[in-house]
Amino acid sequence: MTTSTNRQILLKSRPAGRITAGLFELAEAPRPSAGSGEMLIRILYLSVDPAMRGWIAAAANYSTPVPLGSPMRSFTLGEVAESNHPDYAPGELVYGRQGWQEWAVSNGSDIDRKVDPADGPLTAALHVLGLNGITAYFGLLDVGEPKAGETVVVSTAAGAVGSVVGQIAKIKGCSAVGITGSAAKVRQCLDEFGYDAALDYKAEGDLAAALGAACPNGVDVYFDNTGGAISDAVIQHLNIGARIVICGTMGIPDVGPGEPPPQGPRPNRALLVARARMQGFLVLDHMRRADEAVAELSDWLREGRLRYAEDIADGLENAPASLVRVLAGGNRGKMLVRVADQASTRA
Amino acid sequence: MTTSTNRQILLKSRPAGRITAGLFELAEAPRPSAGSGEMLIRILYLSVDPAMRGWIAAAANYSTPVPLGSPMRSFTLGEVAESNHPDYAPGELVYGRQGWQEWAVSNGSDIDRKVDPADGPLTAALHVLGLNGITAYFGLLDVGEPKAGETVVVSTAAGAVGSVVGQIAKIKGCSAVGITGSAAKVRQCLDEFGYDAALDYKAEGDLAAALGAACPNGVDVYFDNTGGAISDAVIQHLNIGARIVICGTMGIPDVGPGEPPPQGPRPNRALLVARARMQGFLVLDHMRRADEAVAELSDWLREGRLRYAEDIADGLENAPASLVRVLAGGNRGKMLVRVADQASTRA
Repeated sequence: MTTSTNRQILLKSRPAGRITAGLFELAEAPRPSAGSGEMLIRILYLSVDPAMRGWIAAAANYSTPVPLGSPMRSFTLGEVAESNHPDYAPGELVYGRQGWQEWAVSNGSDIDRKVDPADGPLTAALHVLGLNGITAYFGLLDVGEPKAGETVVVSTAAGAVGSVVGQIAKIKGCSAVGITGSAAKVRQCLDEFGYDAALDYKAEGDLAAALGAACPNGVDVYFDNTGGAISDAVIQHLNIGARIVICGTMGIPDVGPGEPPPQGPRPNRALLVARARMQGFLVLDHMRRADEAVAELSDWLREGRLRYAEDIADGLENAPASLVRVLAGGNRGKMLVRVADQASTRA
Repeated sequence: MTTSTNRQILLKSRPAGRITAGLFELAEAPRPSAGSGEMLIRILYLSVDPAMRGWIAAAANYSTPVPLGSPMRSFTLGEVAESNHPDYAPGELVYGRQGWQEWAVSNGSDIDRKVDPADGPLTAALHVLGLNGITAYFGLLDVGEPKAGETVVVSTAAGAVGSVVGQIAKIKGCSAVGITGSAAKVRQCLDEFGYDAALDYKAEGDLAAALGAACPNGVDVYFDNTGGAISDAVIQHLNIGARIVICGTMGIPDVGPGEPPPQGPRPNRALLVARARMQGFLVLDHMRRADEAVAELSDWLREGRLRYAEDIADGLENAPASLVRVLAGGNRGKMLVRVADQASTRA
């Protein structure tokens, strides 16, 4: 702690259309200190997630918009530096929502859980043992309800959530079919994540026909991270009683507040004929049960049944550009930003 | 039994666009007789239902299309005239799928249940104690899962299914809001079926705004008999955890086999933000539990808690015109066709 400043990435303006790094600015604030019942956290890693697109939009959403002039909201892995909080001791690792900055003061209300280094590699707390893994776990198992022998289709199949969904589907005895956006990601799905089949939606002339061939027994569960044209293709192959987990809508263009949603084929008749359901899923509703998910995910990780890929940028100042990269699909694994080293490893 | 013929309404051709009476033809066949293990049924009443639009279409659907040249598929109330079947005796009343004809032979496989005249008026077996009531019962209670104090919105609110949904919602302690297609039906919803509020979608300039005013606490359950623009308005008012029961798609134009579905606003983001679900419901999946529904519905009927309206046409030959009337929304209650009187009341 050789500096008394706290570098932060603040949200400067709201997007009108595409997300750019210019929406954010780097600023310096005084380093805060822990008051009574509080702790000071040194941020080690930031998470960069597609959902941030929604967090910075002005439109009413499932979370309140990040206020202009505030540090960007983000999941973080931090280390307790000083503590006046009875439940936290210096040196402990915490997974929480401390935002894009170097230091944060917390009373514990924005901490999701303590991280046990025995659970896996440190950064795993930010993806396979963090929000992404927990999203995959509850979204697939609680909402998708896969049964052994069924076919599970996943969009953004090589992504931080999708890759865990596909692997849990395999662990549960399902056939897993991934949809992704490049030949390299198709290979990653097949070689690293164990999908039975994977399709590059950009390369398929007729995605619906290709899916039909990849899912000869139809689709029982669709873990939908995109919506849009990809989902329109999947919905043509639903089996009786199929379940669609709506986890993300990256494939649907943004519209301004009050504007009507983009148009697409109405799904009603397909859902009726298949007696299928389509259900919105938000992981924040399930965070009180996070320990349950992390316990099983870390078992699978230790047993070598769960693999992951990381794409780590170095330095807080690179967070905005990393978000742009993620939203363009340019990352080759879970996007993280390294902000500082653990105290024990620092010179 | 003074005639040895069996008048039937046969499906002559498949619809290309709107349903007309000309798709059907009246024909005479010899009256059949009951073989070993069979019974001869005299049809008393036919049911006329919006779902018939799907039954005669060529497109793959949740039931196989009615074959050309066959009697139109239909739920019927009949009376056993002769029986070689150990479980059925002459004079017993049966609810089944004997089609648009005067006489039918059955081995019991197309009988859904025996009708106990003590359960209610005879024709109630074809609506409030029949497919419509059972549809409302399982669709609302099993898929919609309403809780006391919640708001239930129903489209085609004055219809044979919708009117029962609205009344069950009230019995379960919910607020019930109906959407229907004329001022007369709005009055019927309020005065006969006990809705808390009812809207004529044809008269509302801004249906979404009118719904917002009629549902000050938002929408928890939407029993969707239409899809289309009506549902687009309802979906703007979903509460967290809302349930949409897709029971019918009358508000979505028909398309030919292989043609893409009509376009509409994509519901994904609304479902995600509300963590809501949208689920197709087909009553035929629940018919093995029909007795459970009929027992409770007939209790409510006897207690005067369940009201209904009927629109009865006289004579088998009027069945096709009655279907056209139903699909145009011109009926003023459950559409039935009277084919014959019960033996006990015949001269």
